[in-house]
Amino acid sequence: MVRTAAALIIGNELLTGKIQEANLRVLALALRSLGIELRRASMVLDDVETIAEEVQKLASSHDVVFTSGGVGPTHDDVTVEAVAKAFGVAVVQNEPIAAMLRAHFQERCTEGHLRMALVPEGAELVRNSEIPWPCVVMRNVWLLPGVPEAFRAKMPLLRERLEGGRPFVTRSVYTQMDEGELKPLLDRVVESHPSVEVGSYPKWRDPSYKTKLTFDGQDGEAVEDAMRAFVELLPKGEPQRIE
Amino acid sequence: MVRTAAALIIGNELLTGKIQEANLRVLALALRSLGIELRRASMVLDDVETIAEEVQKLASSHDVVFTSGGVGPTHDDVTVEAVAKAFGVAVVQNEPIAAMLRAHFQERCTEGHLRMALVPEGAELVRNSEIPWPCVVMRNVWLLPGVPEAFRAKMPLLRERLEGGRPFVTRSVYTQMDEGELKPLLDRVVESHPSVEVGSYPKWRDPSYKTKLTFDGQDGEAVEDAMRAFVELLPKGEPQRIE
Repeated sequence: MVRTAAALIIGNELLTGKIQEANLRVLALALRSLGIELRRASMVLDDVETIAEEVQKLASSHDVVFTSGGVGPTHDDVTVEAVAKAFGVAVVQNEPIAAMLRAHFQERCTEGHLRMALVPEGAELVRNSEIPWPCVVMRNVWLLPGVPEAFRAKMPLLRERLEGGRPFVTRSVYTQMDEGELKPLLDRVVESHPSVEVGSYPKWRDPSYKTKLTFDGQDGEAVEDAMRAFVELLPKGEPQRIE
Repeated sequence: MVRTAAALIIGNELLTGKIQEANLRVLALALRSLGIELRRASMVLDDVETIAEEVQKLASSHDVVFTSGGVGPTHDDVTVEAVAKAFGVAVVQNEPIAAMLRAHFQERCTEGHLRMALVPEGAELVRNSEIPWPCVVMRNVWLLPGVPEAFRAKMPLLRERLEGGRPFVTRSVYTQMDEGELKPLLDRVVESHPSVEVGSYPKWRDPSYKTKLTFDGQDGEAVEDAMRAFVELLPKGEPQRIE
Protein backbone atom coordinates (compact mmCIF):
# COMPACT_ATOMS: atom_id res chain seq x y z
CA MET A 1 0.00 0.00 0.00
CA VAL A 2 1.23 3.48 -0.88
CA ARG A 3 1.03 5.80 2.11
CA THR A 4 3.48 8.68 1.64
CA ALA A 5 4.45 10.76 -1.36
CA ALA A 6 6.78 13.62 -2.24
CA ALA A 7 6.83 15.97 -5.23
CA LEU A 8 9.89 17.34 -7.02
CA ILE A 9 8.99 20.40 -9.06
CA ILE A 10 11.71 21.20 -11.58
CA GLY A 11 12.29 24.37 -13.53
CA ASN A 12 14.11 27.69 -13.59
CA GLU A 13 10.90 29.33 -14.86
CA LEU A 14 9.31 28.75 -11.43
CA LEU A 15 12.15 29.93 -9.20
CA THR A 16 12.61 33.03 -11.36
CA GLY A 17 8.93 33.90 -11.00
CA LYS A 18 8.26 33.73 -14.75
CA ILE A 19 5.27 31.53 -14.23
CA GLN A 20 3.00 30.54 -11.38
CA GLU A 21 3.41 26.90 -10.33
CA ALA A 22 0.19 25.05 -11.12
CA ASN A 23 0.79 21.29 -10.83
CA LEU A 24 1.36 20.75 -7.14
CA ARG A 25 -2.21 21.40 -6.11
CA VAL A 26 -3.55 19.10 -8.85
CA LEU A 27 -1.27 16.35 -7.56
CA ALA A 28 -2.13 17.04 -3.91
CA LEU A 29 -5.87 16.73 -4.56
CA ALA A 30 -5.44 13.54 -6.63
CA LEU A 31 -3.37 11.98 -3.84
CA ARG A 32 -5.88 12.99 -1.14
CA SER A 33 -8.63 11.19 -2.99
CA LEU A 34 -6.34 8.13 -3.21
CA GLY A 35 -5.65 8.21 0.55
CA ILE A 36 -1.95 9.02 0.00
CA GLU A 37 -0.28 11.71 2.11
CA LEU A 38 1.82 14.26 0.22
CA ARG A 39 4.46 14.98 2.83
CA ARG A 40 6.86 17.32 1.08
CA ALA A 41 7.58 19.19 -2.13
CA SER A 42 10.91 20.48 -3.35
CA MET A 43 11.38 23.00 -6.11
CA VAL A 44 14.79 23.08 -7.78
CA LEU A 45 16.58 24.56 -10.80
CA ASP A 46 17.33 22.69 -14.05
CA ASP A 47 20.56 21.18 -12.75
CA VAL A 48 21.39 17.47 -13.11
CA GLU A 49 23.36 17.13 -9.86
CA THR A 50 20.78 18.95 -7.75
CA ILE A 51 17.86 16.99 -9.22
CA ALA A 52 19.67 13.63 -8.89
CA GLU A 53 20.49 14.29 -5.24
CA GLU A 54 16.93 15.33 -4.48
CA VAL A 55 15.42 12.31 -6.27
CA GLN A 56 17.66 10.02 -4.25
CA LYS A 57 16.69 11.65 -0.98
CA LEU A 58 12.94 11.78 -1.69
CA ALA A 59 12.70 8.29 -3.24
CA SER A 60 14.41 6.67 -0.26
CA SER A 61 12.17 8.37 2.31
CA HIS A 62 8.71 8.20 0.63
CA ASP A 63 6.66 5.40 -0.91
CA VAL A 64 6.29 7.26 -4.18
CA VAL A 65 7.77 10.40 -5.77
CA PHE A 66 6.42 12.52 -8.61
CA THR A 67 8.65 14.82 -10.63
CA SER A 68 7.14 17.64 -12.66
CA GLY A 69 8.97 19.19 -15.60
CA GLY A 70 12.22 18.85 -17.50
CA VAL A 71 11.16 15.99 -19.79
CA GLY A 72 11.22 17.76 -23.17
CA PRO A 73 13.99 17.57 -25.77
CA THR A 74 15.97 20.77 -25.15
CA HIS A 75 19.19 21.47 -23.23
CA ASP A 76 17.25 22.57 -20.13
CA ASP A 77 15.37 19.24 -19.93
CA VAL A 78 17.56 17.13 -17.67
CA THR A 79 15.11 15.15 -15.53
CA VAL A 80 15.63 11.80 -17.30
CA GLU A 81 19.40 12.08 -16.99
CA ALA A 82 19.11 13.11 -13.34
CA VAL A 83 16.74 10.26 -12.40
CA ALA A 84 19.06 7.78 -14.15
CA LYS A 85 21.97 9.20 -12.17
CA ALA A 86 20.02 8.99 -8.92
CA PHE A 87 19.53 5.24 -9.46
CA GLY A 88 23.00 4.65 -10.95
CA VAL A 89 21.70 3.46 -14.34
CA ALA A 90 22.31 4.54 -17.94
CA VAL A 91 20.01 6.59 -20.16
CA VAL A 92 18.75 4.47 -23.04
CA GLN A 93 16.45 4.97 -26.01
CA ASN A 94 13.07 3.32 -25.51
CA GLU A 95 11.99 1.67 -28.76
CA PRO A 96 8.20 1.86 -28.31
CA ILE A 97 8.42 5.61 -27.60
CA ALA A 98 10.87 6.19 -30.50
CA ALA A 99 8.43 4.41 -32.83
CA MET A 100 5.58 6.63 -31.64
CA LEU A 101 7.69 9.76 -32.25
CA ARG A 102 8.66 8.60 -35.76
CA ALA A 103 5.03 7.83 -36.59
CA HIS A 104 3.95 11.24 -35.29
CA PHE A 105 6.62 13.47 -36.84
CA GLN A 106 7.18 11.31 -39.97
CA GLU A 107 9.83 12.83 -42.27
CA ARG A 108 10.08 15.90 -39.97
CA CYS A 109 11.40 13.71 -37.11
CA THR A 110 14.77 15.01 -35.89
CA GLU A 111 17.40 13.91 -33.39
CA GLY A 112 15.83 16.53 -31.14
CA HIS A 113 12.43 14.86 -31.27
CA LEU A 114 13.97 11.45 -30.58
CA ARG A 115 15.50 12.75 -27.35
CA MET A 116 11.98 12.42 -25.95
CA ALA A 117 12.39 8.62 -26.25
CA LEU A 118 15.24 8.57 -23.73
CA VAL A 119 14.47 6.89 -20.41
CA PRO A 120 16.46 5.65 -17.41
CA GLU A 121 17.44 1.99 -18.06
CA GLY A 122 14.92 -0.31 -16.41
CA ALA A 123 12.10 2.25 -16.42
CA GLU A 124 8.56 1.07 -16.92
CA LEU A 125 6.01 2.69 -19.25
CA VAL A 126 2.60 3.32 -17.72
CA ARG A 127 -0.34 4.08 -20.01
CA ASN A 128 -3.85 2.97 -20.83
CA SER A 129 -6.12 2.89 -23.85
CA GLU A 130 -7.21 6.49 -23.34
CA ILE A 131 -3.75 7.86 -22.50
CA PRO A 132 -1.54 6.36 -25.21
CA TRP A 133 1.47 8.61 -24.54
CA PRO A 134 3.18 6.78 -21.67
CA CYS A 135 4.31 7.98 -18.29
CA VAL A 136 7.88 6.91 -17.53
CA VAL A 137 8.14 5.34 -14.07
CA MET A 138 11.57 4.48 -12.64
CA ARG A 139 11.16 2.29 -9.55
CA ASN A 140 9.02 4.50 -7.24
CA VAL A 141 9.59 7.72 -9.23
CA TRP A 142 7.01 8.94 -11.73
CA LEU A 143 8.34 11.39 -14.34
CA LEU A 144 5.44 13.74 -15.08
CA PRO A 145 5.46 16.55 -17.67
CA GLY A 146 5.64 20.17 -16.53
CA VAL A 147 3.11 21.61 -18.98
CA PRO A 148 -0.03 21.88 -16.81
CA GLU A 149 -2.46 20.41 -19.39
CA ALA A 150 -0.14 17.42 -19.87
CA PHE A 151 0.41 17.01 -16.12
CA ARG A 152 -3.31 16.98 -15.43
CA ALA A 153 -3.90 14.48 -18.24
CA LYS A 154 -1.73 11.90 -16.42
CA MET A 155 -3.72 11.89 -13.17
CA PRO A 156 -6.02 9.02 -14.23
CA LEU A 157 -2.91 6.80 -14.55
CA LEU A 158 -2.07 7.43 -10.89
CA ARG A 159 -5.62 6.51 -9.92
CA GLU A 160 -5.34 3.29 -11.90
CA ARG A 161 -1.94 2.25 -10.61
CA LEU A 162 -1.58 3.38 -7.02
CA GLU A 163 -3.38 1.77 -4.16
CA GLY A 164 -3.52 4.12 -1.19
CA GLY A 165 -5.54 4.08 2.01
CA ARG A 166 -8.93 5.54 2.81
CA PRO A 167 -9.49 8.87 1.04
CA PHE A 168 -8.91 11.91 3.23
CA VAL A 169 -11.97 13.95 4.17
CA THR A 170 -12.18 17.58 5.26
CA ARG A 171 -14.78 19.67 7.10
CA SER A 172 -14.47 23.42 7.40
CA VAL A 173 -15.94 25.86 9.91
CA TYR A 174 -15.91 29.65 9.34
CA THR A 175 -15.96 32.11 12.23
CA GLN A 176 -15.68 35.84 12.91
CA MET A 177 -13.31 35.15 15.82
CA ASP A 178 -9.59 35.78 15.58
CA GLU A 179 -6.92 33.15 16.17
CA GLY A 180 -5.99 34.51 19.59
CA GLU A 181 -9.56 33.99 20.82
CA LEU A 182 -9.85 30.61 19.13
CA LYS A 183 -6.61 29.15 20.46
CA PRO A 184 -7.90 27.77 23.82
CA LEU A 185 -10.93 26.18 22.09
CA LEU A 186 -8.79 24.62 19.38
CA ASP A 187 -6.30 23.28 21.91
CA ARG A 188 -9.10 21.34 23.60
CA VAL A 189 -10.27 19.77 20.34
CA VAL A 190 -6.72 18.97 19.18
CA GLU A 191 -6.04 17.21 22.48
CA SER A 192 -9.24 15.17 22.52
CA HIS A 193 -9.09 14.15 18.82
CA PRO A 194 -5.53 13.02 18.12
CA SER A 195 -6.40 11.29 14.81
CA VAL A 196 -7.80 14.50 13.33
CA GLU A 197 -5.59 17.23 11.93
CA VAL A 198 -6.92 20.66 12.84
CA GLY A 199 -5.93 23.73 10.81
CA SER A 200 -6.58 27.41 11.44
CA TYR A 201 -6.40 29.97 8.63
CA PRO A 202 -6.96 33.69 9.12
CA LYS A 203 -8.39 35.56 6.16
CA TRP A 204 -7.85 39.23 5.48
CA ARG A 205 -10.44 41.48 3.93
CA ASP A 206 -13.31 39.02 3.70
CA PRO A 207 -16.38 40.39 5.51
CA SER A 208 -18.01 36.93 5.71
CA TYR A 209 -15.45 35.43 8.10
CA LYS A 210 -12.17 36.07 9.91
CA THR A 211 -10.80 32.57 10.53
CA LYS A 212 -11.42 29.25 8.78
CA LEU A 213 -10.92 26.07 10.79
CA THR A 214 -10.38 22.77 9.02
CA PHE A 215 -10.72 19.20 10.30
CA ASP A 216 -8.95 16.52 8.26
CA GLY A 217 -8.39 12.81 8.44
CA GLN A 218 -8.94 9.40 6.92
CA ASP A 219 -11.54 8.43 9.52
CA GLY A 220 -14.64 10.35 8.45
CA GLU A 221 -16.47 9.76 11.72
CA ALA A 222 -13.58 11.07 13.81
CA VAL A 223 -13.38 14.16 11.58
CA GLU A 224 -17.10 14.77 12.02
CA ASP A 225 -16.80 14.30 15.81
CA ALA A 226 -13.92 16.76 16.10
CA MET A 227 -15.75 19.34 14.02
CA ARG A 228 -18.93 18.97 16.16
CA ALA A 229 -16.92 19.16 19.40
CA PHE A 230 -15.37 22.41 18.21
CA VAL A 231 -18.65 23.95 17.11
CA GLU A 232 -20.14 23.23 20.55
CA LEU A 233 -17.40 25.28 22.18
CA LEU A 234 -18.19 28.38 20.13
CA PRO A 235 -20.05 31.35 21.67
CA LYS A 236 -23.53 32.40 20.57
CA GLY A 237 -23.76 33.68 16.99
CA GLU A 238 -20.99 31.39 15.80
CA PRO A 239 -20.09 29.68 13.49
CA GLN A 240 -20.82 31.74 10.39
CA ARG A 241 -21.04 28.61 8.27
CA ILE A 242 -19.95 24.97 7.99
CA GLU A 243 -18.82 23.21 4.81
CA MET B 1 26.54 41.00 -0.76
CA VAL B 2 23.58 38.63 -0.83
CA ARG B 3 23.75 36.31 -3.83
CA THR B 4 21.72 33.19 -3.13
CA ALA B 5 18.38 32.60 -1.44
CA ALA B 6 16.07 29.73 -0.54
CA ALA B 7 12.41 29.68 0.43
CA LEU B 8 10.75 27.44 2.99
CA ILE B 9 7.00 27.32 2.46
CA ILE B 10 5.22 25.92 5.51
CA GLY B 11 1.71 24.63 5.81
CA ASN B 12 -0.50 21.55 5.67
CA GLU B 13 -3.06 23.58 3.72
CA LEU B 14 -0.69 23.65 0.71
CA LEU B 15 0.36 20.00 0.66
CA THR B 16 -3.27 18.91 1.07
CA GLY B 17 -4.30 21.03 -1.91
CA LYS B 18 -6.71 23.16 0.10
CA ILE B 19 -5.24 26.35 -1.25
CA GLN B 20 -3.03 27.38 -4.14
CA GLU B 21 0.42 28.55 -3.04
CA ALA B 22 0.74 32.25 -3.87
CA ASN B 23 3.81 33.67 -2.10
CA LEU B 24 6.70 32.00 -3.87
CA ARG B 25 6.29 33.89 -7.11
CA VAL B 26 5.99 37.22 -5.27
CA LEU B 27 9.26 36.45 -3.48
CA ALA B 28 10.96 35.23 -6.66
CA LEU B 29 10.15 38.42 -8.53
CA ALA B 30 11.25 40.64 -5.63
CA LEU B 31 14.57 38.77 -5.42
CA ARG B 32 15.15 38.99 -9.19
CA SER B 33 14.82 42.75 -9.05
CA LEU B 34 17.35 42.75 -6.18
CA GLY B 35 19.84 40.64 -8.14
CA ILE B 36 19.50 37.70 -5.73
CA GLU B 37 19.14 34.18 -7.11
CA LEU B 38 16.37 32.06 -5.59
CA ARG B 39 17.97 28.63 -5.86
CA ARG B 40 15.48 26.35 -4.13
CA ALA B 41 12.14 26.16 -2.39
CA SER B 42 10.96 23.51 0.02
CA MET B 43 7.39 22.97 1.05
CA VAL B 44 6.80 21.08 4.29
CA LEU B 45 4.05 20.21 6.78
CA ASP B 46 3.45 21.99 10.12
CA ASP B 47 5.95 19.83 11.99
CA VAL B 48 8.60 21.32 14.30
CA GLU B 49 11.29 18.70 13.63
CA THR B 50 10.88 18.81 9.86
CA ILE B 51 10.91 22.61 9.72
CA ALA B 52 13.92 22.90 12.07
CA GLU B 53 15.92 20.44 10.00
CA GLU B 54 15.05 22.22 6.77
CA VAL B 55 15.88 25.67 8.19
CA GLN B 56 19.26 24.38 9.29
CA LYS B 57 20.02 22.90 5.89
CA LEU B 58 18.84 25.90 3.87
CA ALA B 59 20.38 28.55 6.15
CA SER B 60 23.80 26.91 6.01
CA SER B 61 23.82 26.62 2.21
CA HIS B 62 22.29 29.96 1.13
CA ASP B 63 23.03 33.59 1.94
CA VAL B 64 19.46 34.25 3.01
CA VAL B 65 16.34 32.14 3.69
CA PHE B 66 12.70 33.21 3.77
CA THR B 67 10.07 31.17 5.56
CA SER B 68 6.40 31.63 4.70
CA GLY B 69 3.65 30.66 7.12
CA GLY B 70 3.19 29.22 10.58
CA VAL B 71 3.66 32.47 12.53
CA GLY B 72 0.17 32.88 14.02
CA PRO B 73 -0.91 32.00 17.56
CA THR B 74 -2.56 28.57 17.11
CA HIS B 75 -1.30 25.02 17.70
CA ASP B 76 -0.44 24.61 13.99
CA ASP B 77 1.86 27.67 14.02
CA VAL B 78 5.26 26.23 14.87
CA THR B 79 7.71 28.22 12.75
CA VAL B 80 9.14 30.33 15.59
CA GLU B 81 9.74 27.24 17.72
CA ALA B 82 11.32 25.42 14.76
CA VAL B 83 13.65 28.29 13.81
CA ALA B 84 14.74 28.60 17.45
CA LYS B 85 15.45 24.89 17.48
CA ALA B 86 17.40 25.10 14.23
CA PHE B 87 19.74 27.66 15.80
CA GLY B 88 19.78 26.02 19.24
CA VAL B 89 18.27 29.01 21.06
CA ALA B 90 15.24 29.48 23.32
CA VAL B 91 11.88 31.00 22.40
CA VAL B 92 11.39 34.28 24.29
CA GLN B 93 8.72 36.93 24.49
CA ASN B 94 9.70 40.10 22.65
CA GLU B 95 8.63 43.10 24.72
CA PRO B 96 8.16 45.63 21.89
CA ILE B 97 5.87 43.20 20.05
CA ALA B 98 3.97 42.28 23.24
CA ALA B 99 3.39 46.00 23.87
CA MET B 100 2.02 46.45 20.35
CA LEU B 101 -0.34 43.49 20.84
CA ARG B 102 -1.60 44.83 24.20
CA ALA B 103 -2.16 48.25 22.68
CA HIS B 104 -4.04 46.73 19.75
CA PHE B 105 -6.27 44.22 21.56
CA GLN B 106 -6.59 46.21 24.80
CA GLU B 107 -8.77 44.41 27.36
CA ARG B 108 -9.52 41.67 24.78
CA CYS B 109 -5.82 40.66 24.72
CA THR B 110 -5.43 36.95 25.58
CA GLU B 111 -2.55 34.53 26.14
CA GLY B 112 -3.28 33.40 22.59
CA HIS B 113 -2.71 36.86 21.16
CA LEU B 114 0.52 37.22 23.14
CA ARG B 115 1.90 34.06 21.52
CA MET B 116 2.48 36.29 18.49
CA ALA B 117 5.16 38.12 20.51
CA LEU B 118 7.30 34.97 20.77
CA VAL B 119 10.58 35.06 18.85
CA PRO B 120 13.78 33.01 18.74
CA GLU B 121 16.23 34.47 21.28
CA GLY B 122 18.60 36.89 19.54
CA ALA B 123 16.22 37.63 16.66
CA GLU B 124 16.17 41.10 15.17
CA LEU B 125 13.04 43.08 14.35
CA VAL B 126 12.99 44.65 10.89
CA ARG B 127 10.45 47.38 10.14
CA ASN B 128 10.16 50.91 8.84
CA SER B 129 7.88 53.89 9.33
CA GLU B 130 5.36 52.58 6.79
CA ILE B 131 5.46 48.96 7.94
CA PRO B 132 5.20 49.21 11.73
CA TRP B 133 4.46 45.52 12.31
CA PRO B 134 7.96 44.03 12.35
CA CYS B 135 9.47 41.17 10.45
CA VAL B 136 11.33 38.77 12.72
CA VAL B 137 14.78 37.96 11.32
CA MET B 138 16.92 35.29 12.99
CA ARG B 139 20.48 35.47 11.65
CA ASN B 140 19.97 34.94 7.88
CA VAL B 141 16.41 33.63 8.19
CA TRP B 142 13.44 35.95 7.61
CA LEU B 143 10.15 34.73 9.12
CA LEU B 144 7.44 35.95 6.76
CA PRO B 145 3.68 35.52 7.27
CA GLY B 146 1.75 33.01 5.15
CA VAL B 147 -1.34 35.13 4.47
CA PRO B 148 -0.64 36.41 0.93
CA GLU B 149 -1.62 40.06 1.61
CA ALA B 150 0.67 40.13 4.66
CA PHE B 151 3.49 38.39 2.80
CA ARG B 152 3.36 40.88 -0.05
CA ALA B 153 3.29 43.80 2.39
CA LYS B 154 6.74 42.79 3.71
CA MET B 155 8.54 42.93 0.35
CA PRO B 156 9.59 46.60 0.72
CA LEU B 157 11.54 45.59 3.85
CA LEU B 158 13.60 43.13 1.80
CA ARG B 159 14.34 45.84 -0.74
CA GLU B 160 15.47 48.16 2.04
CA ARG B 161 17.64 45.65 3.84
CA LEU B 162 19.20 43.29 1.32
CA GLU B 163 21.95 44.31 -1.02
CA GLY B 164 22.12 41.95 -3.96
CA GLY B 165 23.89 42.15 -7.31
CA ARG B 166 22.74 43.58 -10.60
CA PRO B 167 19.04 42.96 -11.23
CA PHE B 168 18.30 40.03 -13.52
CA VAL B 169 16.87 40.85 -16.94
CA THR B 170 14.84 38.63 -19.27
CA ARG B 171 14.07 38.71 -22.98
CA SER B 172 11.51 36.37 -24.53
CA VAL B 173 11.09 35.13 -28.11
CA TYR B 174 7.92 33.36 -29.28
CA THR B 175 7.96 30.90 -32.20
CA GLN B 176 5.67 28.46 -33.98
CA MET B 177 8.47 25.85 -34.04
CA ASP B 178 8.47 22.84 -31.74
CA GLU B 179 11.24 22.02 -29.28
CA GLY B 180 12.62 19.20 -31.42
CA GLU B 181 13.21 21.61 -34.31
CA LEU B 182 14.57 24.30 -31.99
CA LYS B 183 17.05 22.12 -30.15
CA PRO B 184 20.04 22.43 -32.56
CA LEU B 185 19.61 26.23 -32.77
CA LEU B 186 19.34 26.55 -28.99
CA ASP B 187 22.40 24.37 -28.45
CA ARG B 188 24.50 26.79 -30.54
CA VAL B 189 23.33 29.84 -28.56
CA VAL B 190 23.76 28.10 -25.20
CA GLU B 191 27.31 27.13 -26.13
CA SER B 192 28.33 30.58 -27.39
CA HIS B 193 26.72 32.54 -24.51
CA PRO B 194 27.66 30.77 -21.27
CA SER B 195 26.68 33.70 -19.03
CA VAL B 196 23.10 33.65 -20.31
CA GLU B 197 20.55 31.16 -19.14
CA VAL B 198 18.36 29.97 -22.00
CA GLY B 199 14.94 28.46 -21.33
CA SER B 200 12.51 26.73 -23.66
CA TYR B 201 8.81 26.42 -22.83
CA PRO B 202 6.27 24.67 -25.04
CA LYS B 203 2.71 25.95 -24.86
CA TRP B 204 -0.37 23.90 -25.57
CA ARG B 205 -3.48 25.29 -27.18
CA ASP B 206 -2.25 28.81 -27.90
CA PRO B 207 -2.61 29.61 -31.59
CA SER B 208 -0.19 32.56 -31.36
CA TYR B 209 2.92 30.47 -30.60
CA LYS B 210 4.16 26.96 -29.91
CA THR B 211 7.37 27.54 -27.96
CA LYS B 212 8.60 30.46 -25.87
CA LEU B 213 12.34 30.95 -25.51
CA THR B 214 13.74 33.01 -22.64
CA PHE B 215 17.16 34.59 -22.21
CA ASP B 216 18.13 35.55 -18.65
CA GLY B 217 21.09 37.01 -16.88
CA GLN B 218 22.54 39.85 -14.84
CA ASP B 219 24.55 41.21 -17.80
CA GLY B 220 21.90 42.96 -19.91
CA GLU B 221 24.15 43.26 -22.95
CA ALA B 222 25.01 39.57 -22.95
CA VAL B 223 21.30 38.70 -22.65
CA GLU B 224 20.52 40.97 -25.61
CA ASP B 225 23.38 39.44 -27.64
CA ALA B 226 22.21 35.87 -26.98
CA MET B 227 18.65 36.74 -27.91
CA ARG B 228 19.77 38.41 -31.17
CA ALA B 229 22.09 35.48 -32.03
CA PHE B 230 19.16 33.10 -31.60
CA VAL B 231 16.75 35.19 -33.66
CA GLU B 232 19.26 35.26 -36.54
CA LEU B 233 19.25 31.45 -36.65
CA LEU B 234 15.49 31.26 -37.13
CA PRO B 235 13.96 30.46 -40.54
CA LYS B 236 11.91 32.96 -42.52
CA GLY B 237 8.58 33.90 -40.94
CA GLU B 238 9.98 33.54 -37.40
CA PRO B 239 9.90 34.73 -34.67
CA GLN B 240 6.24 35.48 -34.01
CA ARG B 241 7.16 38.15 -31.50
CA ILE B 242 9.85 39.38 -29.11
CA GLU B 243 9.28 40.77 -25.63
